Amino acid sequence: MSFKKYLLESLSLKWSSEELLLLDQSLLPHSEVWISVTSPEQMVTCVHQLQVRGAPLIGVASALCLANYAFQGASYSEFSEALNKLRAARPTAVNLMWALDRMHKLAEYSSYDKSKLVNEAMQIFIEDKMMCDRIAEQGASFLSEGDQVLTHCNTGGLATAGVGTALGVIRKAHEQGKKIHVFVDETRPLLQGGRLTTWELDRLEIPYTLICDNMAATLMAQKKIDKVIVGADRIAANGDFANKVGTYSCAVNARFHNIGFYVAAPMSTFDAECASGDRIPIEQRSEAEVRGVKGSFGEVTWAPLSGEVYNPAFDVTPAHLVSAWIFDVGIWTQKNFR
Amino acid sequence: MSFKKYLLESLSLKWSSEELLLLDQSLLPHSEVWISVTSPEQMVTCVHQLQVRGAPLIGVASALCLANYAFQGASYSEFSEALNKLRAARPTAVNLMWALDRMHKLAEYSSYDKSKLVNEAMQIFIEDKMMCDRIAEQGASFLSEGDQVLTHCNTGGLATAGVGTALGVIRKAHEQGKKIHVFVDETRPLLQGGRLTTWELDRLEIPYTLICDNMAATLMAQKKIDKVIVGADRIAANGDFANKVGTYSCAVNARFHNIGFYVAAPMSTFDAECASGDRIPIEQRSEAEVRGVKGSFGEVTWAPLSGEVYNPAFDVTPAHLVSAWIFDVGIWTQKNFR
Repeated sequence: MSFKKYLLESLSLKWSSEELLLLDQSLLPHSEVWISVTSPEQMVTCVHQLQVRGAPLIGVASALCLANYAFQGASYSEFSEALNKLRAARPTAVNLMWALDRMHKLAEYSSYDKSKLVNEAMQIFIEDKMMCDRIAEQGASFLSEGDQVLTHCNTGGLATAGVGTALGVIRKAHEQGKKIHVFVDETRPLLQGGRLTTWELDRLEIPYTLICDNMAATLMAQKKIDKVIVGADRIAANGDFANKVGTYSCAVNARFHNIGFYVAAPMSTFDAECASGDRIPIEQRSEAEVRGVKGSFGEVTWAPLSGEVYNPAFDVTPAHLVSAWIFDVGIWTQKNFR
Repeated sequence: MSFKKYLLESLSLKWSSEELLLLDQSLLPHSEVWISVTSPEQMVTCVHQLQVRGAPLIGVASALCLANYAFQGASYSEFSEALNKLRAARPTAVNLMWALDRMHKLAEYSSYDKSKLVNEAMQIFIEDKMMCDRIAEQGASFLSEGDQVLTHCNTGGLATAGVGTALGVIRKAHEQGKKIHVFVDETRPLLQGGRLTTWELDRLEIPYTLICDNMAATLMAQKKIDKVIVGADRIAANGDFANKVGTYSCAVNARFHNIGFYVAAPMSTFDAECASGDRIPIEQRSEAEVRGVKGSFGEVTWAPLSGEVYNPAFDVTPAHLVSAWIFDVGIWTQKNFR
C-alpha cells in the first residue's frame, strides 16, 4: 500500500494542509507541470496567467489556498486582506465569490478557527466534486445515442474539482455507452478548447473533432451538430449568463438552426443579486492575445502592433436562447426564471 | 522620368512580358517579398501555399502566367496542359475558371497567337481593376456616415488587381469622408484578416479593430456593428455563395441582429451553371492549419496531434441571408435571382 500524501486529489489539483499543487494549465497539452502554490498572492497570479482556470476550480483552489494561509500562521487581518485580493482576481467568476464568502463567514462565526477553515475548504472541494457528478447525471439524459455535440472552451476536470460541468455531461453520456462525438471549438484567443478539452477527451478516449470557432455554423447547416452544451461563469437572476467569449455566437447559431442549447453549471454560478446579463462586468484582456498566440507551445504574433484590438474574456448569452439550464440541484427551464 | 519596367502594377502584382512578380502574401505583414513566377507549375504552388490568394487575383495572375508561358515558347499542347493544371489549383474560385476559359478560347480562335494571348491577359488585369472600381462606387452607397462595418478574410488590393471587392467598398466610403470604422475578423485558421486586412487598412489609414471571429456576435448584440460586408469565391444561380469559412456564421449573426449583410464580388464570380450552394465543391485543407498556426511569423502547434480535425476552406451562405449582392454590373437583390 502506497502512502497517500494528499488528502484531496483531482485531475488538476492536489492538496494537503502542507501543500497546494495546481496543474499548470497554461503548459498543456505539451507538458504536465504542477505548481506549488504557497501564498494567496501567487494564487492571484495563477488566475491572471490562466495557469489555473475554470470558475469552479478557481473557487475551490482559492479556498484551499486561504485555508493553508490561515493554518500556516496568517493573522485575521492578513487573511481578510488576502481574501479580498482573491475576490478581485476574476470578477466574472461568481463561484469564486461564493467560495470566498463561505470562507469569510466561517472565519467570522468561528472567531478565525483555523481547523474549521481547513475543514470548510475541504468541504468546498468535496461538494464541488459531488456537484459535478449530479450535473453530469442529470445532463446526460439530454444526450441521445449517437449525438454529435458542440462544446466551447474547457469545462471538464481542468475546470472543476470533479468531472466538470458541460464536459462532465458529455463524459457521463459517453460512459453510458451513447456513442457521443464531440465537436470542440478551439476557443480563440486562449485556445482552451484546442489545448485543454482535446487533452481531456484524449485521456477519456471520447471521439472528437477539433474545429475553429467559425466552423460550427457550417456544421450546423449540414446537420452535423445535434446539441450544444457549454458551461457558465455567472448566471443572472433572469437566466442570462456570462461564459467564455464565443459562447453567444454558438447560442445564436444553435437557435437559427433549431438545435438544443444547454448550459451546465453549479447552482453557485447563479447570482440572484444580478438582475440581468447586462449587469455582469466583462473583463477585458490584453491586445497581445488577439494579435497572436502564446503558451508552452511557443509565442508568435501575426497581426501588426499598430492596430486597435477588442478582447473581452466573456460574452453574455440571453436566457431566451437557452433550452435548459442543467444545475446540480435540478433542471431549470425558462419558467424557473420568471 | 524613370523607366517603367512593368506594364502592369498593383498592390500585389507586377508584370511585363519578361516577368511576373507576385507579392508573397504568406509573409505579410512582417515582410514584403516578391516572388518571380516563371512557370505555371510554380503558379499552382503559389496558389496552394496561399502565397497568392483572393479569387480575382488568382484568375488575373494565372492568365498573365499562361501568357508569358506561351510567349516564352510553350507549345499549344504544353499550354493546354498548363491551363488544366491551373484550373485544378483552386476549384472553388470561379474567377479562375472564367479567366482560364477566356485564355483557352482565345488560344483556340486565334490559332494560338501568342501576342493576342498576352493582350488578352493584360485585358483581364485591366478589367479586374475597373471592375473593382465599379463595385467600390456602387457599394459605397450602402455605407453611411459613421458606420461600423464588420468584414471577414481579405478582399482588398491583395485579393484583386484593383482596390478589392468588399474592402474596396469600405475604402471608397472612407475616401468619401464617411468616417467608417472597420471590425476585422482575424479569420481562422489562416488569419487573412489578422495578417492581411489589417496590413492593408494600416496602409490606407482606415481605423479598425481586430477581433477573433467568435467576438463579432457580442459586438452585434452591443449594437457596435452596423453592416457586414464580405467577398465571394463563387455565387450560384440562386444567389447562394461560397466564401472563406466563417462567412456563414457572420451571415447568421447579422440576420439574428437585423444587420445588413452585403456580398461584394465581380460578376465573373457568378456561376449560372451551378444551381445552388450545395453544388459548390468545398476544398478541405490540412489538419495542421487548425492544430496551430504557421507563417513568416513562426510556427506553433497547440493541439494534440492525435485528434481528428475538420478544416473546410470555405462555407456556403444561402441567398436568403443576403441583403444585396454588389456586382460590378449593378446591385442585385433577392428578386434578381428568382
